[in-house]
Amino acid sequence: MSAIKLNEYISQIKGLDTDAMKEARERLDSLAKPPGSLGRLEDIAEQLAGISGSLYYDISKRCVIIMSADNGVFEEGVASTPQSVTLAQTINFHRGLTGVAAIGKQFGADLIAVDVGINADLDHPHIINRKIRKSTRNIAKCAAMSHEEAVQAVLIGIETAIEAAGKGYKLFGAGEMGIANTTTSAAVLCALTGVPVEKATGKGAGLTEEAYRNKIEVIKTALNINKPDPMDPIDVLAKVGGFDLAALAGVFLGAAVIRVPAVIDGFISMVAALCAARLAPAARDYMFASHSSYEQGFVHAAGALGLRPYLDLDMRLGEGSGCPIMFAVFDAACAAIRDMGTFEQAEINDDYLTKLRNDDYYTLK
Amino acid sequence: MSAIKLNEYISQIKGLDTDAMKEARERLDSLAKPPGSLGRLEDIAEQLAGISGSLYYDISKRCVIIMSADNGVFEEGVASTPQSVTLAQTINFHRGLTGVAAIGKQFGADLIAVDVGINADLDHPHIINRKIRKSTRNIAKCAAMSHEEAVQAVLIGIETAIEAAGKGYKLFGAGEMGIANTTTSAAVLCALTGVPVEKATGKGAGLTEEAYRNKIEVIKTALNINKPDPMDPIDVLAKVGGFDLAALAGVFLGAAVIRVPAVIDGFISMVAALCAARLAPAARDYMFASHSSYEQGFVHAAGALGLRPYLDLDMRLGEGSGCPIMFAVFDAACAAIRDMGTFEQAEINDDYLTKLRNDDYYTLK
Repeated sequence: MSAIKLNEYISQIKGLDTDAMKEARERLDSLAKPPGSLGRLEDIAEQLAGISGSLYYDISKRCVIIMSADNGVFEEGVASTPQSVTLAQTINFHRGLTGVAAIGKQFGADLIAVDVGINADLDHPHIINRKIRKSTRNIAKCAAMSHEEAVQAVLIGIETAIEAAGKGYKLFGAGEMGIANTTTSAAVLCALTGVPVEKATGKGAGLTEEAYRNKIEVIKTALNINKPDPMDPIDVLAKVGGFDLAALAGVFLGAAVIRVPAVIDGFISMVAALCAARLAPAARDYMFASHSSYEQGFVHAAGALGLRPYLDLDMRLGEGSGCPIMFAVFDAACAAIRDMGTFEQAEINDDYLTKLRNDDYYTLK
Repeated sequence: MSAIKLNEYISQIKGLDTDAMKEARERLDSLAKPPGSLGRLEDIAEQLAGISGSLYYDISKRCVIIMSADNGVFEEGVASTPQSVTLAQTINFHRGLTGVAAIGKQFGADLIAVDVGINADLDHPHIINRKIRKSTRNIAKCAAMSHEEAVQAVLIGIETAIEAAGKGYKLFGAGEMGIANTTTSAAVLCALTGVPVEKATGKGAGLTEEAYRNKIEVIKTALNINKPDPMDPIDVLAKVGGFDLAALAGVFLGAAVIRVPAVIDGFISMVAALCAARLAPAARDYMFASHSSYEQGFVHAAGALGLRPYLDLDMRLGEGSGCPIMFAVFDAACAAIRDMGTFEQAEINDDYLTKLRNDDYYTLK
């Protein structure tokens, strides 16, 4: 039943509007600058046109969607932070205290926090309650969740994105809060791509060398026990993933369904994006890598997805904290295509010097 | 006389305020996040404290200072754009039509355009007239300017920066407009660092392969004829530089004199920053590389200065167009140190779950 619904959503994901992209490129080439000299800002403007169908896409209403859940593998000692931090920081998003809250506010981004599996009772007016259950199971011992639950989590992400678009949000960031989710993300990355566990696994929020070696062993065990099917992203998410990761993959799918650009944050967000692109390759066209995370698996996840970040900030906080900064890069791209003058308006031509001798020229403009 | 004045300014440049930096680092470490997890945003916040002496430096009033001048080497066919574009685009800054105008407006940055040597008569209410003379001479035939003129151009930059600070600007970008100035910049870079001409020279706004080979030969000729002294940046600027480049170097020095952070744009801006740092090594602490320019000499100039850009946008427009985007990265850093909660405020501790069981908790906050 849920699987049918998921496939229906996926079938709605279409490619970019190539006519709008062509029109955007023509406009960009008409602007008073050497062709292509705004580099990737021009590519962003073109891609936004392909996503929205509009040359001047208004991204002023924007949000970061944050999927919060706990991960059973926490009990293996893979995290340097207590599990209660998942709950605490999810609440703190709306108290304005976390990284994404402070940075998001600066760039006019609202936060949409969703509880998909926090390990505590929670009934908070500003946190969307889509809890599947309290925490996944420990992937070092069994599957994190059932296949049905994984589909359910992905659907929650899709529906959250569609609902956000319904409220007028035109630009999404995709963040997460879930202690131990660099472990699940590394496991999913290894399962999907065959990247060695040692390369996919980083030190998260700050593990000791010993805890880091343990984390690697835990991920190897999880992969050995669960034997996820690399060709089936839902199987991978169910066996070695998490509710946060699966729901975040859903956000990327939902963004593509309703044709809204979705900004990837760090490692976990990138692995979720990879899952989404494996489920629906066309969804990749709606994704933008924001910054190159310091977490060492990031580069492999980004490489598997073929995405190149725009910001080099050594960030490794998560929460979607890098997304709002990328929104500013979008703002720059949108300002360029919208506000720059064309060669004609800028009067860059050989008659210019002659014309300037007209005393009235400056006051005319 | 001018040389004495320049030395006086240089002697006023001091290092960062290490007490303020220590205080900033303590504040950053007290915030509700894994230590260091905001990466280079934390380093920016710390450096801004070192520059300004204040933990919460207000960068809302910001500008891009643009030095405009023509370069005599234009007559060697080293540019793909007519010389009149220097004048046209300088005027277009204030008509809001250029790249830096559109992007600057988006990020609340004012433009301060200075004519230090445009090859035309110009009397414009919004362009500061500090014209030394109309265009430098052709560096492939003789020195671009006299030693005295080079000092004068640097002083113009210093004074422009100091005047801007006097008007309340707290954050500078440093841009330029000067057709043929990738040629002079490459020559200056080679002279200062010994980087081979082929590595320092790029295709500028879009040269053909043949014109590119000619540009390399022109730069080699300029270096052979003029024999600039690598240990004397003023000599290098006078012999193979330009008014735009020298004045821009002055902007970086002036920023350091009055302790205002200065953002480097692309290749030319980076070479100017390198000149400034060679004149006053402590000035480097006030500089920030914004984006990694597509122009191939950029990486060598940035390497010589030991600066790592924050944005990867393949931009190569100049004008200071990348600076306002970097202002947004500063905004993120300032928002983080100012607005994030401390661990204490965020109540990340073991009593948290217990406390949450108090029904009144959410409404209290």
